[in-house]
Amino acid sequence: MSDDWKSYALQLANQAKVASRQLATLSSRAKHDWLKRSAELLVANSNEICAANQRDLDLAPSYGLSSAAIDRLKLTDSRVQAIAAAVEDVIALPDPVGELIDGYTRPNGLRISRVRVPLGVVFFIYESRPNVTIDAAALCVKSGNAVILRGGKEALFSNQALYNALKQASKETGLPETAVQLVETTERAVVGELLGLGHLIDVTIPRGGKSLIERVSVEARMPVIKHLDGICHVYVDKAADIQMAVSILKNSKCQRTGVCNAAECLLVHKQIAPAFFDAASSMLITESVEVRGCPRTLQFLPNAIPATDADYGTEYLDLILSCKVVDNLSEALDHIDQFGSKHTDTIVTNDYLAAEEFLASVDSAAVMVNASTRFNDGGEFGLGAEIGISTDKFHARGPCGLKELTSYKWIVRGEGQVRG
Amino acid sequence: MSDDWKSYALQLANQAKVASRQLATLSSRAKHDWLKRSAELLVANSNEICAANQRDLDLAPSYGLSSAAIDRLKLTDSRVQAIAAAVEDVIALPDPVGELIDGYTRPNGLRISRVRVPLGVVFFIYESRPNVTIDAAALCVKSGNAVILRGGKEALFSNQALYNALKQASKETGLPETAVQLVETTERAVVGELLGLGHLIDVTIPRGGKSLIERVSVEARMPVIKHLDGICHVYVDKAADIQMAVSILKNSKCQRTGVCNAAECLLVHKQIAPAFFDAASSMLITESVEVRGCPRTLQFLPNAIPATDADYGTEYLDLILSCKVVDNLSEALDHIDQFGSKHTDTIVTNDYLAAEEFLASVDSAAVMVNASTRFNDGGEFGLGAEIGISTDKFHARGPCGLKELTSYKWIVRGEGQVRG
Repeated sequence: MSDDWKSYALQLANQAKVASRQLATLSSRAKHDWLKRSAELLVANSNEICAANQRDLDLAPSYGLSSAAIDRLKLTDSRVQAIAAAVEDVIALPDPVGELIDGYTRPNGLRISRVRVPLGVVFFIYESRPNVTIDAAALCVKSGNAVILRGGKEALFSNQALYNALKQASKETGLPETAVQLVETTERAVVGELLGLGHLIDVTIPRGGKSLIERVSVEARMPVIKHLDGICHVYVDKAADIQMAVSILKNSKCQRTGVCNAAECLLVHKQIAPAFFDAASSMLITESVEVRGCPRTLQFLPNAIPATDADYGTEYLDLILSCKVVDNLSEALDHIDQFGSKHTDTIVTNDYLAAEEFLASVDSAAVMVNASTRFNDGGEFGLGAEIGISTDKFHARGPCGLKELTSYKWIVRGEGQVRG
Repeated sequence: MSDDWKSYALQLANQAKVASRQLATLSSRAKHDWLKRSAELLVANSNEICAANQRDLDLAPSYGLSSAAIDRLKLTDSRVQAIAAAVEDVIALPDPVGELIDGYTRPNGLRISRVRVPLGVVFFIYESRPNVTIDAAALCVKSGNAVILRGGKEALFSNQALYNALKQASKETGLPETAVQLVETTERAVVGELLGLGHLIDVTIPRGGKSLIERVSVEARMPVIKHLDGICHVYVDKAADIQMAVSILKNSKCQRTGVCNAAECLLVHKQIAPAFFDAASSMLITESVEVRGCPRTLQFLPNAIPATDADYGTEYLDLILSCKVVDNLSEALDHIDQFGSKHTDTIVTNDYLAAEEFLASVDSAAVMVNASTRFNDGGEFGLGAEIGISTDKFHARGPCGLKELTSYKWIVRGEGQVRG
């Protein structure tokens, strides 16, 4: 059997490679025709898609899915329409391929430029939510990449039904048939085989739990764009506006808890701690936030639980907040350096020097002043749709939109120049 | 013993990490003071450096170094001065850290910008030529990165003597002492240990033979910037200026043979083949180029040797040239796609459409029209010094100068905005 998976994986990757060569020089119009028709077919096939989704929902209890996970898995007519609308949004984004990044003329007359090109073949591994299938396919095709999609077993029938619309659109609009491919088995050995094909696949993007991402990072023989923990901090500086600090903490922690850009840890300057906790405690109680704090925190919030070092390094993804009172900005910076995950950290302050020092010193994908951590998001940053939020520093950092799915090449134009 | 190497590697990496945090916000002036003093001390220590180099040269025969390799290893007073002058050149380059890449204001008033930041800790592995020790240290410090240098055993004494000048400069100018560290053992286990420290080292850059680079790629638990084969093509189109084609072929193949941007394969359109080979044959003979050709090539160059498929995929790094006569541009593009290494390829033509199709279709780091492949080089592209020429598509492609040693972060400035 393992030989079968090997050859299946090799076939997928080879087919993607062939398609990627065609996609690289495809016009925006041809890509838009496919996106447009895909959106139409998704809406037209909504009944079949929802019926396939029902098969997944029927099996969901056997996979032990929580009710929240089942809700994320569920498709309805209006959700399918929203998925199609997201494809239309991708059409409206500028085509990154062919963008002239920079250009200049050398003293010997050579005209040198850098032009944006697709990465080539993307292997995208994700879990549960079936809309990701369509988002990822739309972003990859728009950026001129072939993509191999590997969704979770919980969504297999839904993903197949969604994928059928894309295949149909390829046939009708002439997009290379293997530009978008779905791994149509839940056999994990296929993933391992694909991760070994570094000569055919240009990048792997895993989106899901930490264990998935770590496994992929170890096995992959090609670059990986990782989306790991978001241990995001809100630091309330001594010069903070207290109402603003409470509002930003509330939004960062409570607006949506299960996402990577939600805050997990609150740091408070000791000089503002009495007044700040006085204002924040009722919000924390109203929002049912469990606080795990340092000894000084416990003086202000008697209901808080004592925090351990493990708390400070934990991404709760829940209504839990670790908290520490610090002596000064420097202690806050050290804490973020030690326990943060280089995702998103914000300072609330009206002190210019403190704001600038925080921005310069915190080594995270997004560093903010007087804004909620929840803004670290492709849509909120104005990039349009994103394929994820990278916690890497290499190639792409923070929200990964269309440009982050590209590379560049150097173009040199001359009239016979040779090197002296 | 292996525990000793483990703790040695961990110590190097931890110290580099600490230094990298300080380097990230160091002013250009402080970095320039160190570069300037390093250059001065290299010149001042020239006698000791050359004496240490003599110890390496004495041992060179026991390592089986060729006379060419021994020449590359050798340091003289004037070569030390040239190394110091290269450091001065790095001072003159713009500091990439803090560069505002882009910035804009969102409808909710958030001011969003992307600012260039150092990658962090660079692990640089290289072979023989001792000047690389200084080039790499200068580029890494200028770009705000801490660096761990691991040179070849053949240059150990030379590298230590060069490194002493850098250490002295750090002491005198206040650069963090562990910003630049040399692995002062030839024990290979240390390399393996360092490659496992993905949480401390941000990128590994191996520069050397293919086996080194492949070993590093397999073991590294962090991103790798690879510098692999340069199987570069010169394609002489039917609309080529024949004298220009001969000149570009000569320069691409013969100006320096042992480098990655030298041409290894010549493709000739069948319609121009008779006239082109008529003009090129005497040059190829004068330059002592051994041609390995397809059957049609052999008709024009009777002294050529029949080529095999293996020839077309070979980086000779020598006065050997594989050659194929093709029916049209499309066959040339297919050949480059199949046998090239995505490094540098050039078309010689006066046909506008052919030039543009070549530029658009060839997926190489540098694609050229009417110019020698030898121009794919940081200095020739105007980037200043380079740490290598990347054959990857991810993060950095082609010449890697200061900017390619950086990442970016998102800066968000607000007045209390929260997400709706």
